[in-house]
Amino acid sequence: MTLPLDEWQARLEAALAAQHSNGDGAHDPSHVRRVWKTASRIAAALDEPVDRLVLLAAAYLHDVVGVEKNDPRRSPASRLAAAHAVDLLRGLGFPDDRLAAVAHAIEAHSYSAGIQPTTAEARVLQDADRIEALGAIGLARTFYVAGRMGSALFHPDDPLARSRDLDDRAYAVDHFYAKLLKLPATMQTEPGRRLASERAAVLERFVRDLLDEL
Amino acid sequence: MTLPLDEWQARLEAALAAQHSNGDGAHDPSHVRRVWKTASRIAAALDEPVDRLVLLAAAYLHDVVGVEKNDPRRSPASRLAAAHAVDLLRGLGFPDDRLAAVAHAIEAHSYSAGIQPTTAEARVLQDADRIEALGAIGLARTFYVAGRMGSALFHPDDPLARSRDLDDRAYAVDHFYAKLLKLPATMQTEPGRRLASERAAVLERFVRDLLDEL
Repeated sequence: MTLPLDEWQARLEAALAAQHSNGDGAHDPSHVRRVWKTASRIAAALDEPVDRLVLLAAAYLHDVVGVEKNDPRRSPASRLAAAHAVDLLRGLGFPDDRLAAVAHAIEAHSYSAGIQPTTAEARVLQDADRIEALGAIGLARTFYVAGRMGSALFHPDDPLARSRDLDDRAYAVDHFYAKLLKLPATMQTEPGRRLASERAAVLERFVRDLLDEL
Repeated sequence: MTLPLDEWQARLEAALAAQHSNGDGAHDPSHVRRVWKTASRIAAALDEPVDRLVLLAAAYLHDVVGVEKNDPRRSPASRLAAAHAVDLLRGLGFPDDRLAAVAHAIEAHSYSAGIQPTTAEARVLQDADRIEALGAIGLARTFYVAGRMGSALFHPDDPLARSRDLDDRAYAVDHFYAKLLKLPATMQTEPGRRLASERAAVLERFVRDLLDEL
């Protein structure tokens, strides 16, 4: 028996609500729902078949193991999340033959894990999650996370790191150059690339405004 | 004997460096230096005399008592800072007859204190500090502070609070409407008003981008 997608979404919403909140507004249920929305949008524009149930489960559970940005466990976080997601989905009666696809999409979504996505669902999820790091939302999330970590906003004398090494633990704006503005080039799908490039432009304009103000 | 402004700035820089850091990158020495820079800029464009030494001391010491945004002591923080600044300046040999003007400018700079500035220096400092809450810098600081407080980025279903009360402790974007976008109307000087209105436009564009993404 395969339940309709809506019913699975309701079950995953309940699982999300049951998750312990660590007070991180950059990785809360809203983030998860936006990733699912962006992933659906990319999937709809994609030129190849996407298993929407696998994508839904992977999107809802991609951050199921919350690890802070400056936590040394960050690198294997997506592997922990994949294992936890499989357990959770088994408990919910998720089709056995699609668990491996969910696990792969979750493992491969992470930037730091460095795992190449090999399925359409994994490519779509990776793009959707990276798009969350761009645009107005990405801007807000970057400074939010910097506040949690106690970084400085930017290097006071050399905000663009023209004559120093980048250090995105110390300076939030360095994160734009160490990672965020490189994301459009890592997009796995054409619809993802289009969205990422529009949203990277929002970050670039922010940097221009900031430099004008300094 | 009156020392040159540069010499006072060096002494105040030393006082700033000696201050205990609480890891708050939204209220660090860079913030203080930017406030002084903006205050100088407003003073230079102002149609009335400004005592630059009073302005310098008040700008450098306006946050000398660091109180977090969600601390109940926030309201009298500017009074505490004024008292502490007077002690500190006395110890540095600051001219006695200008201490009261520094104290008034520091007391009156704060939004929550609700004290009307009665001198040019107090008006300029209040404008300069409020301008820090606007523009690209204000945007970065708002989400940074939200991260420190553990707020959400925005209300997921009603980000503009069309059918609910604003709550800027709970939602960072609510702070735009509860306070930031009201700041241009509170400007005390004409040059401050011009700067504030340019920088409020940066926040308004951010909100438009955010809504497009949602």
